[in-house]
Amino acid sequence: MANVAIMGYGTVGSGVYEILKTNSKNITRRARGEEINIKRILDIRDFEDHPEKELFTKDFNDILNDDSIEVIVEVMGGLHPAYEFTKSLLEAGKSVVTSNKELVATHGTELLKIAVDKNCNYLFEASVGGGIPIIRPMHQCLTANNIQRITGILNGTTNFILNEMIKNGSTFEEALADAQKRGYAERNPAADIEGHDACRKIAILASLASGVFVDYNDIKTEGITNITLDDVRYVRSIGGVVKLIGYAEFMEDGKIYSVVCPMIVNNTSPLAGVDGVFNAIMVTGDYVGDVMFYGKGAGKLPTASAVVADVIDEVNHLERSKRIQWVKADKEVMASPDDKKFCYFVRTNRGAVTVKSLFEGCRFVESIVAGEIAFVTAPLSPSERDEKFKELGSVVSSLRILQ
Amino acid sequence: MANVAIMGYGTVGSGVYEILKTNSKNITRRARGEEINIKRILDIRDFEDHPEKELFTKDFNDILNDDSIEVIVEVMGGLHPAYEFTKSLLEAGKSVVTSNKELVATHGTELLKIAVDKNCNYLFEASVGGGIPIIRPMHQCLTANNIQRITGILNGTTNFILNEMIKNGSTFEEALADAQKRGYAERNPAADIEGHDACRKIAILASLASGVFVDYNDIKTEGITNITLDDVRYVRSIGGVVKLIGYAEFMEDGKIYSVVCPMIVNNTSPLAGVDGVFNAIMVTGDYVGDVMFYGKGAGKLPTASAVVADVIDEVNHLERSKRIQWVKADKEVMASPDDKKFCYFVRTNRGAVTVKSLFEGCRFVESIVAGEIAFVTAPLSPSERDEKFKELGSVVSSLRILQ
Repeated sequence: MANVAIMGYGTVGSGVYEILKTNSKNITRRARGEEINIKRILDIRDFEDHPEKELFTKDFNDILNDDSIEVIVEVMGGLHPAYEFTKSLLEAGKSVVTSNKELVATHGTELLKIAVDKNCNYLFEASVGGGIPIIRPMHQCLTANNIQRITGILNGTTNFILNEMIKNGSTFEEALADAQKRGYAERNPAADIEGHDACRKIAILASLASGVFVDYNDIKTEGITNITLDDVRYVRSIGGVVKLIGYAEFMEDGKIYSVVCPMIVNNTSPLAGVDGVFNAIMVTGDYVGDVMFYGKGAGKLPTASAVVADVIDEVNHLERSKRIQWVKADKEVMASPDDKKFCYFVRTNRGAVTVKSLFEGCRFVESIVAGEIAFVTAPLSPSERDEKFKELGSVVSSLRILQ
Repeated sequence: MANVAIMGYGTVGSGVYEILKTNSKNITRRARGEEINIKRILDIRDFEDHPEKELFTKDFNDILNDDSIEVIVEVMGGLHPAYEFTKSLLEAGKSVVTSNKELVATHGTELLKIAVDKNCNYLFEASVGGGIPIIRPMHQCLTANNIQRITGILNGTTNFILNEMIKNGSTFEEALADAQKRGYAERNPAADIEGHDACRKIAILASLASGVFVDYNDIKTEGITNITLDDVRYVRSIGGVVKLIGYAEFMEDGKIYSVVCPMIVNNTSPLAGVDGVFNAIMVTGDYVGDVMFYGKGAGKLPTASAVVADVIDEVNHLERSKRIQWVKADKEVMASPDDKKFCYFVRTNRGAVTVKSLFEGCRFVESIVAGEIAFVTAPLSPSERDEKFKELGSVVSSLRILQ
């Protein structure tokens, strides 16, 4: 029997409890006959009506000091006290399984090192892509490859909103309200719609792929709040869709270029068909080419099922470090924004002659808004783009095109 | 240093050699500092011009009896002598990594048991989906779930052919010739176009998911040779595409329903957008819902990269059985074909009145071929379908619709 504790009995925590209870027979088989027993649940709230209310505690020490508990599920969310708790547990040689992307993205370097040093594990499959297997496939299945690029639809809320705009002609505000009504978006949706959630996830994936810590603060992040229905219609007319993309490219000089922003995805890309609250992560390796992982990127049970899979894996590997690790580089690791060029879709109120003279090699797109001209540029760096936009004087909107 | 041997220096074998040589620095890092050294290559052919010709041997005993070789890559293909060699190696406690779907589907039960008994491993990530991580994600990442369904586009050759028919209006014969010209199809393409290749792969996935041996001989298999351009056009008119689908459903009574045949995939499914030689496998779990794995399902380097990932994983787990296993059930494991109903798309030369009277609840589709009527049936079992088709007397073609 393997004893586990759950820290945080919210949406994901109660999902982990539910899965471990209802699917226990199958889980025991997967854990090589070890029954997984929930010994403690930590939460500051009262759960007097819970059928196993005796498991609940408000005292972290009941878990830390219980030598029979070997694996702890941290699904509290937020940095504090999740960080302090996780650190103490790993230092005590206990393995921790988490869905806390904020914590992994911020303190992963330190926590993973402690786990390696203490011969235990800090597992975080559920922190990116919810129920989609992505961390372990990247760490174990694509190991023969040098990863060249990661392109992800990493946030279900924004993908739902954009999809409603694309498919149903809803405005951004209508789609956001709908997402909130369905429980896909928080009452304060900033972390999603401003791109911060996707940014933490791409930072984790980029760190994992490179072995070098990528600080999410260094990733230029732009949300979807400025996308209009006219943008969406224009993009459809050129055979694409707008998606919020978390992008990381591993350059030949060893540096990492990363950005989070809405991009135009060509309809021929498998990412274009990723609808609603689904997520997808395309990983490009030098030998395997493009592989894509698709599924529900959030939600109680999908996320909890990824947590439970990590718990089972850990029970199968007790006292055996998986050595998942990334380290802080001693020199600058991020490429300059100007190291990467994109083509841009641009709408302007200026005339075709001006556009042509400024944007060499541009291609005009049939206008669908009176008084506007729309075009696609040749590849430009952000500096080149900004300079040309300044000279143009009028930019209604502009969007990067994913290549 | 970990010594490995490669058995079979064909397309995949030379790809494994190439990747281990050119990506050795990165691979050593992934193998926790263990350099992976190719000590022997077994092939019956001569490779006098090879830069490491001294590695080649025609004598299997040079590998079997070399105690320093711990991991062997079997990429010979075919059943014999691959089966005998693999069995001898596993019995000697050496781990074997393979891309040989034929061998895994036929003798996997026995070979996996030997590996477990001898505390070594028989790994076969490359046997299904080429470079796509699917075996390990199913075995390690979806463990919290009861797998309900597997729906796969498992053969790149047929997907390329169907795609050429759908996108470019090629006939089946033209598309097959094109596939052969590009090297996607063998000169004798039967294994691909008759569905046998996809059948072996779905049998492996179904065995892995259920823990029970699914014999590919028990899976009804139909290829794509009867699909015409008119079928493809009809299917487009009802918002779908024709794909060769390997299907396995794990029924509530514990039985397994499996079939390989062309099916109509609705355009809203992420499987519909899987074009060209790409493969995709959709796995449905009770908690995670649908997850899909997409990528190059064949080809020298994608497949070899999956083999090398298994080698790295094995080097990281020497003398530690992963206990991947399925067993022969002591009672019938396969569901009867009649346990599963599908809706069918049907073309006939009979009149609407006859169709209506025979197919209750059917829905007519606008005809695009003179003198024909086309319709979609309500869900039917194969017996019900066959009986009604017999009464109808004229069926130009019929296709299952994937739900």
